[in-house]
Amino acid sequence: MRILLALLLVAGSAGAAERPRFRETGRVVGSLPTGPANAITDVAGVRVGHVTLIEGTRVRTGVTAILPHAGNLFQDKVPAGFFRANGFGKLAGSTQIEELGEIEAPIILTNTLNVAEGMAGSVEWTLAQPGNGEVRSVNAVVGETNDGFLNDIRGRHVTIGDVRRAIETAKAGPVAEGNVGAGTGTRLFGWKGGIGTSSRLVDGFTIGVLIQGNFGGKPVILGRPVAAAPEQAGLAAAVSDGSIIMIVATDAPLSDRNLQRLARRAVVGLARTGSTMDNGSGDYVIAFSTHAGVRRTEARRAAVTAYPELANAAMTPLFAGVAEATEEAIYNAMTGAAAMDGNGNRLESLPISLLPN
Amino acid sequence: MRILLALLLVAGSAGAAERPRFRETGRVVGSLPTGPANAITDVAGVRVGHVTLIEGTRVRTGVTAILPHAGNLFQDKVPAGFFRANGFGKLAGSTQIEELGEIEAPIILTNTLNVAEGMAGSVEWTLAQPGNGEVRSVNAVVGETNDGFLNDIRGRHVTIGDVRRAIETAKAGPVAEGNVGAGTGTRLFGWKGGIGTSSRLVDGFTIGVLIQGNFGGKPVILGRPVAAAPEQAGLAAAVSDGSIIMIVATDAPLSDRNLQRLARRAVVGLARTGSTMDNGSGDYVIAFSTHAGVRRTEARRAAVTAYPELANAAMTPLFAGVAEATEEAIYNAMTGAAAMDGNGNRLESLPISLLPN
Amino acid sequence: MRILLALLLVAGSAGAAERPRFRETGRVVGSLPTGPANAITDVAGVRVGHVTLIEGTRVRTGVTAILPHAGNLFQDKVPAGFFRANGFGKLAGSTQIEELGEIEAPIILTNTLNVAEGMAGSVEWTLAQPGNGEVRSVNAVVGETNDGFLNDIRGRHVTIGDVRRAIETAKAGPVAEGNVGAGTGTRLFGWKGGIGTSSRLVDGFTIGVLIQGNFGGKPVILGRPVAAAPEQAGLAAAVSDGSIIMIVATDAPLSDRNLQRLARRAVVGLARTGSTMDNGSGDYVIAFSTHAGVRRTEARRAAVTAYPELANAAMTPLFAGVAEATEEAIYNAMTGAAAMDGNGNRLESLPISLLPN
Amino acid sequence: MRILLALLLVAGSAGAAERPRFRETGRVVGSLPTGPANAITDVAGVRVGHVTLIEGTRVRTGVTAILPHAGNLFQDKVPAGFFRANGFGKLAGSTQIEELGEIEAPIILTNTLNVAEGMAGSVEWTLAQPGNGEVRSVNAVVGETNDGFLNDIRGRHVTIGDVRRAIETAKAGPVAEGNVGAGTGTRLFGWKGGIGTSSRLVDGFTIGVLIQGNFGGKPVILGRPVAAAPEQAGLAAAVSDGSIIMIVATDAPLSDRNLQRLARRAVVGLARTGSTMDNGSGDYVIAFSTHAGVRRTEARRAAVTAYPELANAAMTPLFAGVAEATEEAIYNAMTGAAAMDGNGNRLESLPISLLPN
Repeated sequence: MRILLALLLVAGSAGAAERPRFRETGRVVGSLPTGPANAITDVAGVRVGHVTLIEGTRVRTGVTAILPHAGNLFQDKVPAGFFRANGFGKLAGSTQIEELGEIEAPIILTNTLNVAEGMAGSVEWTLAQPGNGEVRSVNAVVGETNDGFLNDIRGRHVTIGDVRRAIETAKAGPVAEGNVGAGTGTRLFGWKGGIGTSSRLVDGFTIGVLIQGNFGGKPVILGRPVAAAPEQAGLAAAVSDGSIIMIVATDAPLSDRNLQRLARRAVVGLARTGSTMDNGSGDYVIAFSTHAGVRRTEARRAAVTAYPELANAAMTPLFAGVAEATEEAIYNAMTGAAAMDGNGNRLESLPISLLPN
Repeated sequence: MRILLALLLVAGSAGAAERPRFRETGRVVGSLPTGPANAITDVAGVRVGHVTLIEGTRVRTGVTAILPHAGNLFQDKVPAGFFRANGFGKLAGSTQIEELGEIEAPIILTNTLNVAEGMAGSVEWTLAQPGNGEVRSVNAVVGETNDGFLNDIRGRHVTIGDVRRAIETAKAGPVAEGNVGAGTGTRLFGWKGGIGTSSRLVDGFTIGVLIQGNFGGKPVILGRPVAAAPEQAGLAAAVSDGSIIMIVATDAPLSDRNLQRLARRAVVGLARTGSTMDNGSGDYVIAFSTHAGVRRTEARRAAVTAYPELANAAMTPLFAGVAEATEEAIYNAMTGAAAMDGNGNRLESLPISLLPN
Repeated sequence: MRILLALLLVAGSAGAAERPRFRETGRVVGSLPTGPANAITDVAGVRVGHVTLIEGTRVRTGVTAILPHAGNLFQDKVPAGFFRANGFGKLAGSTQIEELGEIEAPIILTNTLNVAEGMAGSVEWTLAQPGNGEVRSVNAVVGETNDGFLNDIRGRHVTIGDVRRAIETAKAGPVAEGNVGAGTGTRLFGWKGGIGTSSRLVDGFTIGVLIQGNFGGKPVILGRPVAAAPEQAGLAAAVSDGSIIMIVATDAPLSDRNLQRLARRAVVGLARTGSTMDNGSGDYVIAFSTHAGVRRTEARRAAVTAYPELANAAMTPLFAGVAEATEEAIYNAMTGAAAMDGNGNRLESLPISLLPN
Repeated sequence: MRILLALLLVAGSAGAAERPRFRETGRVVGSLPTGPANAITDVAGVRVGHVTLIEGTRVRTGVTAILPHAGNLFQDKVPAGFFRANGFGKLAGSTQIEELGEIEAPIILTNTLNVAEGMAGSVEWTLAQPGNGEVRSVNAVVGETNDGFLNDIRGRHVTIGDVRRAIETAKAGPVAEGNVGAGTGTRLFGWKGGIGTSSRLVDGFTIGVLIQGNFGGKPVILGRPVAAAPEQAGLAAAVSDGSIIMIVATDAPLSDRNLQRLARRAVVGLARTGSTMDNGSGDYVIAFSTHAGVRRTEARRAAVTAYPELANAAMTPLFAGVAEATEEAIYNAMTGAAAMDGNGNRLESLPISLLPN
């Protein structure tokens, strides 16, 4: 029997609801204000969908879809930048982002061995969208982390249908964190990890970050080392299966080059949580702008268009924003994730009592 | 009814056999000698498998698999380099090649909308290999070109099974060219394109190239412009769906950095055939070394190993070799491809009489 | 005694005048029309200055400066892209071009061991420009090739004053080719090389290319191999000191990303002349746009500006233009260069009779 | 009158001696042990030379040279990697490092407008070394930060002789920090900055880092925000002239690719000190290996050599080491730097009492 928890968890399951967001514990990352939901969806138009797969004792995985806007993504592409912080990963779609500076499909997150299904689901959904009847080329963008500790990853349990459902159920507003979607089975610093999100308001713009957190190392929270998970000592070999995918959204009118630069700053937030981007970690960042003026619509695709662009010299505050939001998103992934058993293993949740004051 | 022509075409079908290899027409590219088969398989250990899908009036596609050696590719990885000449494409697996400098799975070529199946087939085959029972992470490498002119590409007709079969039927020796495997439905300069291969012997080393040719522009052969295909005038819009994937193999003991440099020189051969790497073309190169000394075996993966490495200063002759072999592989794709109908369209084969003297 | 031939050669010295431009021999590269001067200066606003240093028997070197426009380059920066085709070279300024997507100083070409003086001259000139009294940071962009065969390169004979004079004497209109400026002592395919330039008109835009040609290999002209220089056989070791710097200018309103893509296509033209980008060759391309709308003026540097941008899909014709212009610029460098003695060596000029028909 | 303080400061001037190293205040960064000098010179063979220029009221600048080994650097090149964290800078020599994976000259640090003199000094010194009589091509590697707040940077006061003297006086053993060499006039987080260094012992290898620190932002020490400098509020505009150059040395036998990966991890340490790599900051890392086995000697330059190479999977501990050493080197630059007046401005030293406990 397959239990689909997508709607349930988005609405907040009892178990997940017991875990607080980091900020709810009275702690603050940085100095910039957050958006209303403190989530990537604070960037207007961005929608997130989770499909959570928890089945029997061995399936602990899922899919998270991030949609830059509610329109036809293929017809109205968004400028985007990509950064490979450490490329031990299977992220699909990066070379076209780098070449053309744009994204034309939902961003899909899932587990390492189901990237194929992520691509197929994204392609099939795109082909089926109204107005896309002549489309013969789709650049699916799929990130992954390895949930093989709690999940029977070799079973490749994510289906094309799961991916399409994550896209189709994506919505604005608060975003479920922790053991949901592509974060269902992930591990962070030896503790249970998951999905986390956060946002910042900077210079009249909003920056939102969503992460799929699954990496190892010695955790640091607000600059203070945190006690390692009891399981961590014995996980040396497994830890190198880690990774983090960081998705950055903004409504600032940025060129693809400055989106690439913005993406690079997510690593600043990552570094502050204790990561050293281990050899076995696939650490990637994708940043996109939802600003209507920079959208690459059909009408603009063969001509000269005047695109608004924020100047290089105005980027610094945004860099600080993405660093803060990434750091907090990682904390949210940890505080939001409840303990979980799966695949014969168990990951404890980070005790809130261990957070530094 | 699905007709699988894999074995038939590899052995040489009647139709394909009528088309000569470029060199059989009495013409020569460059000055370096070729290997015995004038094929990528002249690099000892390299195997190629084609699965050709020709079904009814609309399916004209397929899969080509290139295996660097006959052993366990995941356990005995090969150093590799990657070059994005123009990134309007969906090639999967490049970031891990760039980060770790190695390939751990077969290289799969197929059509643009079946990259997902290429990945899934590569992953499933790798997981199933003897000795890989604990593998939980596989970097599938999949290239593609868009055969949507002759093929019902939106139907996504390539299956995971097709991909596995291409891998499993891969073999050494002569390589079928033209309308086979991933070249079944492709178009080159408005003529029928396909798979082509060639090799060169340089300084005691062998360099082999295999290309999946599907790009547009004004063809040039041996430095002379060739008459455009009759269909080409009306194909302006479609031509931008083109692409070429170039796979370079060598037995020279090269570092991954020098393999990346070698990959970059495939563009020299490409440029000489008339390509300007159009905006819509996904032009990628992957180069790997089969030299036993540079193989990254399990025993070498956590320690210091002495890897033989050819010096920078000795690379120049190899650069010339890859340029020549790439140019000839493209010509072979054209001379090897017979005319084909599909998807309501037709592509003529390049008349041999049009070749310059 | 130091003889400065700058003004003399720009006006056309007797010796140089005897050599024809490639097109004057009745041959044509490609199919696109050229601008009125068939030179990089066909792009309105672009100016070129040469300082040619021929002194005694050993000094055969110089400086070429390319200015994107006649205004204050530092205050009104131009968007730019950079491509490292083969990085065995000392080109300065590339990382800031890549990061900020712009150029703020003249582009200087000189010999390998005088890049320092190129930088110092560019910096000093920029600091001294009216309106730059508060400038404390200048990104000098300097390319080089190695003229050490004919020139006493170890003597480092180019001075800061020479560089400033090349900038200050830069002008619009016809550009001297062959043994002038930074091409004074260079070698191409074993023959005497030098400076060459060409242009193309495409889709209402102008593309201009200027090259400093100094590389080796087997020359190919219009697709046909050309007889090697008599000296070439014995120059194996020296040939690896080669290099080519390619400067691309356009008045099309391109983003820095599309300028980088445009730069990459100069390699297409280079490859067609026979180069395989040898190990020892420093092969670099810089492309910039002079379009007034994309200029990054002081007023635009801290705000949102609407920059006109030609779409990705409209780039293909420009790619063809830069390929053609680069190929012809290389031929012009060869046909324009007279034989020269220097440093105890001699390079013959390519006999016009050897050009293929 | 020009006062050269090179020898004086290396030996320890009275003023500088009053400032402690960070570790001498009883604080520790990370968990790994340091080498005996806690300096980049703990990597055997590495030598550092400072030339400090303090003249009158306006000259506050200098040169720092880092030599990978005591032999002929040009003849016995070392493998190296380069990372552009934020490319608003004038670092010279990076493209050849990326292409060939090696360094052949001292690494020179100086101020932004004297990179030319850094190059010239490095080139002239290299040409003059015994055994280099035939050398005609030198890849000078020069980094810079902008000391224009305390220094009359437009005066371009560093001479070629200063650069050569920094090279020639380089030595092993303890390294002077703070207001010396290329750190003489620099600013960190609004406080007086300078040169800092640190090292770590990991898995039997030594990793050393030396930084030239001159960037802005909100300082964080050991994870805790530190009070801003009193001057900082008014420095908004100037802060964007910042930058940091990070030099990483190791005796581990690393490939150039893994040196590039090691370089990337210096950013982890940088991020932990509060930097977000502001728009105006030129943040670069160069890493090299001194291991005798990977040295590219003349005898190895045209043949196949067996180079020892540490495996990818063994890199993670080294990543942690470079992160720790970079963080501590930045702290050392701050604790080591005394207050300074210059150019009509003043920078206070960070009060030790402000360090968090």
